[in-house]
Formats: sequence, C-alpha cells, structure tokens
Amino acid sequence: MLKGKVLVAQGGGPTAVINQSMAGVVLEARKYEAISHVYGALNGVSGIVNENFLDLGQETQENLERVAETPCSALGSTRDKPDAAYCTEIFKALRAHDIQTFFYIGGNDSSDTLRILTEKARAVDYPLRCIHIPKTIDNDLTVNDHTPGYPSAAKFVANAFAGVTLDNRALQGVYVGVIMGRHAGFLTAAAALGRKYPDDGPHLIYLPERNFSTDGFIADVKRVFHQLGRCVIAVSEGIHEADGTHIATKLAEKHETDAHGNVQLSGTGALADLLTDTLKKNTEIKRVRGDTFGYLQRSFMGCVSDVDQREARQAGTHGVRFANELGRDGSVTLHRVADYEIQFRLSPLADVAGKTQVMDDRFIADSGTDITPEFINYLKPLVGSDMRVPYRLQAPAVTKVLDKG
Amino acid sequence: MLKGKVLVAQGGGPTAVINQSMAGVVLEARKYEAISHVYGALNGVSGIVNENFLDLGQETQENLERVAETPCSALGSTRDKPDAAYCTEIFKALRAHDIQTFFYIGGNDSSDTLRILTEKARAVDYPLRCIHIPKTIDNDLTVNDHTPGYPSAAKFVANAFAGVTLDNRALQGVYVGVIMGRHAGFLTAAAALGRKYPDDGPHLIYLPERNFSTDGFIADVKRVFHQLGRCVIAVSEGIHEADGTHIATKLAEKHETDAHGNVQLSGTGALADLLTDTLKKNTEIKRVRGDTFGYLQRSFMGCVSDVDQREARQAGTHGVRFANELGRDGSVTLHRVADYEIQFRLSPLADVAGKTQVMDDRFIADSGTDITPEFINYLKPLVGSDMRVPYRLQAPAVTKVLDKG
Repeated sequence: MLKGKVLVAQGGGPTAVINQSMAGVVLEARKYEAISHVYGALNGVSGIVNENFLDLGQETQENLERVAETPCSALGSTRDKPDAAYCTEIFKALRAHDIQTFFYIGGNDSSDTLRILTEKARAVDYPLRCIHIPKTIDNDLTVNDHTPGYPSAAKFVANAFAGVTLDNRALQGVYVGVIMGRHAGFLTAAAALGRKYPDDGPHLIYLPERNFSTDGFIADVKRVFHQLGRCVIAVSEGIHEADGTHIATKLAEKHETDAHGNVQLSGTGALADLLTDTLKKNTEIKRVRGDTFGYLQRSFMGCVSDVDQREARQAGTHGVRFANELGRDGSVTLHRVADYEIQFRLSPLADVAGKTQVMDDRFIADSGTDITPEFINYLKPLVGSDMRVPYRLQAPAVTKVLDKG
Repeated sequence: MLKGKVLVAQGGGPTAVINQSMAGVVLEARKYEAISHVYGALNGVSGIVNENFLDLGQETQENLERVAETPCSALGSTRDKPDAAYCTEIFKALRAHDIQTFFYIGGNDSSDTLRILTEKARAVDYPLRCIHIPKTIDNDLTVNDHTPGYPSAAKFVANAFAGVTLDNRALQGVYVGVIMGRHAGFLTAAAALGRKYPDDGPHLIYLPERNFSTDGFIADVKRVFHQLGRCVIAVSEGIHEADGTHIATKLAEKHETDAHGNVQLSGTGALADLLTDTLKKNTEIKRVRGDTFGYLQRSFMGCVSDVDQREARQAGTHGVRFANELGRDGSVTLHRVADYEIQFRLSPLADVAGKTQVMDDRFIADSGTDITPEFINYLKPLVGSDMRVPYRLQAPAVTKVLDKG
C-alpha cells in the first residue's frame, strides 16, 4: 500500500501529453490519505541527486489541469543515464527525503534507468518502489500497443504531409520531409494518414525497418515523378544502408552523441539536404525541396490528439493505482482489447527497459516504400476525431479552342 | 459593369487561405446575371497560355466551401513571370475564350505580372480588366495593413515557438528556428506572439530589416545563455550582412534561382545548420539544435486563423464588386480603420506591383534583436481567437536536507 512520500519525474524527449501523465500521478496520489507528500523532481534523475524537488501537494488542481494541457515536460527533463556512482547519489537523496515510491515518466532509456535503480536499491537494501509510466513519440516501447505521445506526434506528421502534398500539387516538383524516429518507423509511417485521393502523397515512405539504397531511392523517385509530375517523400531520420550505416551519419564530420551513446539525428537539416542534393545531381527534376520537421513534431502548441491526452492521463492514474494495489515494480503498459478500447496493465520493468519495438511486417507494404491498410486501421483511432480532410475542385475542363499545332 | 466570361487564377506560393479568396471570387461572380461563365486557370498564367481552364460555374457551392477550407492553391500555381512573347500567348488564349476580366490571386510578383499584362493589353487594344487579390505569407505588400495568408502562417510560427520554447526549457540548450521571409521580417517576428512568461523565448530575433553579424550573433547567444541557461532564437531566412550578402547564400555552391531571379532560400536546412555549427565552434554550449520550418508554415492542415479565412474570402468578394462598380483595374487592399476592423479598397496596380514592404521601425526594438509591444498589438487581432496559452507549475521548492559541501 502506498504511503509516505512519493516522487514523480519526467525523462527523455518531451511530448505533447507528458504533462497529462504527470497530472494523473499527482492528482491520483493526492487522493490517498496515507500519502503525506507528492514531490516532483526537476530535470529527471539529475533533479533527484541535486535535491531539486517541488512540493506538488501545494499545486492547485486548476493549475495542474492547465499544465496538463501544455506540451513538453513541465518538470524539465534529462538525458542522463545513471551509472553506479550516480545511483548512489540518487539513493542518498531519496533516503534523506524519505521517498519510497518513484514514478518515472519516460521512454525505453528512462525505463532502463528505472530497472538499474531497482537493482541498485535491492543491492543496498533500500525499500524503493519504481513505476515506469510510458511516453515516447517514437512508439518504440515493447509490450505496448502504442505509447502516449505517439498519437499527437503522428497527428502532427499526418497534418504536415496532408498540407505539403497540397503544396506540392500546386507548385509541382519533389518534396522530401524528414521525420523523427531512430529505429522505429511508426512516426514516419503516420505521414500516410492524411491521404485522401489515390494520387495523394506521400508517394514514397522510407522506414528504418527496411534497408535504404541511394540507387533505389533515385529510381523510385524518377518512376513516381514520371507518372505524376510530382513526388512527395517521407523519410525517417533513422534510414540506413544494408550494413547498418546511418545515411545521416555519412555526412557528419564528427558525430555528436548523448549519454546513451545515441548519435544526434535531429536538430540538423543535413539528411534532407543530402537527399535533395542527390536527386538534383542524379535526375533532371528542377524543383526539389526538403524539410526536416524537427522539434515541432513533439512540441507544437495546439496539435494534440484528444485520445492521446486521455490515455496519457490514465497511464499516470493507473501507475499510482497499480503501485498501491499490486505492491511491485513495473511498467504501465497499454493493450488494445477492442476496436477501439485500451486496457492498462503493470508489466515487469525488464520486459520494457532498454528494448526497442519496431514496425511489424504486416504494417509495411511489399514494395518496402509504403505502408499497408492495416497500419492505417491501427493508427486511425489514436489521432482523435478532429482530423481535417482536404478537398479538390471537381469542375470539368473547358474545351480548348486554339489550334497550337 | 461585369459581363461575359471572367477568369480567376492563383499565383506564387500557396497559403492556408488562398482558396477562400478563390471561392469568394467564384461565388460572388456567379451572382451577376450578365456574367455568363466563371473560368479558373490551372497553374496561374501558364494555365492561360495552355488553355487549361476549369468551368467553375459547374462547381457546387458545397464543394467550393470545402475547397475554401483546404489550404494551398486548389487551381495550382506557377512561378512564371510573363515576358512580351508570353503575354502575346496569354492574350491569344483570353481572346479565343472571350475572357474580359481576370482576377489574379497572388503576391507582389503576381501583381507585377498583372501590371505588365494591363500595359500589354492596352498596347494591343484588348479590353482586359485585371484585378489583383492580395495573398502572401510574407506580409510584404505595400499599401495593405496586412495581407491574407500572413495571419495563418504567423499563427503557425507563434504556436511552433511557444512549443519549442517549452521543449528548450525542458531539455536546456540553444535552439535556432529558421523562418520564411526573404525581405520582410513579419513572419519571423510572429515567433514572439506565443510568449507568456518574462523569460519565454524567442530570446533573440534576427530580421532581414537589420544587418546580421556573426560576431554579434555569437555574443548575443552567449549573453542570453549565461543568464538563462538556455536560448531560443528566431531567424529569418533572409538575414544578410551589412553589404547585403545573404547569410544563406554564403553556403551554397551554386545558387538556384527562379524565373523572378530570386535565390532559393527555402527547402534547405543549410542556414540553420550554418548557425548551429557557428555556435558549436565558438561557444562552450553543448546542446545546440536547429530547425528550418519550411513549407509547413504555409500549408500545415488545421492551423488557420478564422480572421484570416474571413478576410481572404472578403478580399475575393470585394474584388468582384470593385470590378463591377468601379470599372478600372486595381489591387484589392486591406486597411485597418479601427481596433479591430478592416476596410477594403481598390488601389492602383502600380502602387502594389513588384514593390516590397518591410517592417516599420516602430515594430523593431532598439536592440535590433527583438520586436516591440506595438508589433504584438498589431499582430494579435489577426491570428484569431483560439491561440493556446502555456502554463507552468507554481509549486514551491522543497528545502534541501543534504549538506553537499
């Protein structure tokens, strides 16, 4: 049973709904009489070692609800991955503040941090209960049907591609949009959700689940452009050659890596520029443009799925309930049990921690450059009810009267 | 008085509301009994010379209203700038189809095309009435208080910066966002609209109205980062040195130019990458990220100002009314007559054609890297009523208990 002080923190890249999960934890925890305090650590685990705690018991419900609707980690985040010495510092701070339950909202790196923490806690015999609340725009957590944060980012990507498809139809040429997702193509695949007419883009989709070849890319684009006079392309930042070499890293003079050893893929337009340069040099197509969607995908104000908001809130609420009722560590996981309903469970941390889920083959078309209708059926219920639909003029053409011959 | 056949076309870069103006022209024109046909030219003036006309009289009002709500030129667009021979072809097609009134929805390049057309028409004694309907996300048309298309693009930029400011606060570092706008900084300046708290970004704004110096840029960023531990920067793609050299063009091996002689600035991430590389090399700041907002600014589905939609529609409607009542060529212009009300007038084409309006000094702070409250007052009524507002946690900090010394 939950009692004493509980702590909540947010780790990894922010999402549009990560504050919903935080509000879910705080508001649910405050219902339990045995819980004396609800603390929030600033900037994830780094806030714990530095004792940067907020007393969230003193936050008004009204303000918490407003923060819940605001994108990006309100408590701040971190990319720190604790080693043994770091963990010792964490326990020192937790013990000093008498904290026994820690809710960490994050992705697979954050859940792995939690797994390490529980091992270290057992080793030093500190009674720490750790609950992982899932979030990631990459949708790459195992066990889960999908993860909070993904639906809103997918909605952004779908709306972006619905728009650039119209733009590309108005001023014809080739358009390349580069989308976040290091290992999993779920977010890139969402580019297809805005399609309405048979010749709508994206006409080509390059996922990290398939090997990328520059020659194949050039041939694909030429084929589509020859057919339609235009071509819209969705590319994952994580595309790589058959030997695993990331296309993005082929460019960088020196690679920037974070504490998890991840190479920087976002925050640079290099991949889009490489791909557009490749097309300019190897085709006769005059107008070739590229955009890297970057941080807007996870932070843009006002582009949020109501389904995602609700589920992110519930993930936080269920985390507290599971901690109270089940008396074990774990990761809150989302399971689709009907079309469309989500059930929450508490899975072992080890099942989720540090693991990466990629797109199933049934979601990827045989061509390797498109998704299947099954993927659309999977994604559609997640993005909410207010997706805009594009329309075209239907008026008939006027008969030509001039003889140009 | 309007009679016979009228033609509508769309030129230049698409916007979120350019179809509202097209629908305004078509629906208003269809009210006049003396008007026999309403044609739409596909891909602007190039559609005229190729006789690619749609009979918009046969479009249902229901579908027209749906298209009006869809971003990006439904008739297609063009970057063509007609020369004498091109104009001869245009007249040939117009005469063959007995078209006497031409409504061209576009920016300063399109209005200049119209000005040339009217001169050529007079020279060959062809009775052509030309009405320019304003649109541009750059907001750089003279005479106008602002132009349809700008408010929705400004709303996108404001929402994007409100979001990345939160993201940058959660995972601290430096963030550079590059925004469209070759000569005028209006769209870049809109990045400031999402500020709520005194330390919200963008903390630095670089406009084409002021000279850019790399040394000054590095010093500015160091100062802000030293003070806040983070820095969000809005940069216009049109920034240039004191001698007029575009920062973006300093990079390109060879410049790509369009028919108007404009160098390609959008559709590449080179400028953001140059600026982030400059900061990485010249400061100790570890996390430096850059995004180029690109085509999403003018095409993103669902990010549209209701004020912009209404005014774009009215601009089209008034264009038809002016053509009928005033019997002269001209450009429909928007004038602010109250706080907030817009009056439409028909100004001489020569007052708008080919001219560029930049931001007034009263809109730019003395520092040269910020905007004034007067600019916010100018912009606020344009973006509509549904701007999201960010909220922060207000809970007090917990007293530290560990002695770290």
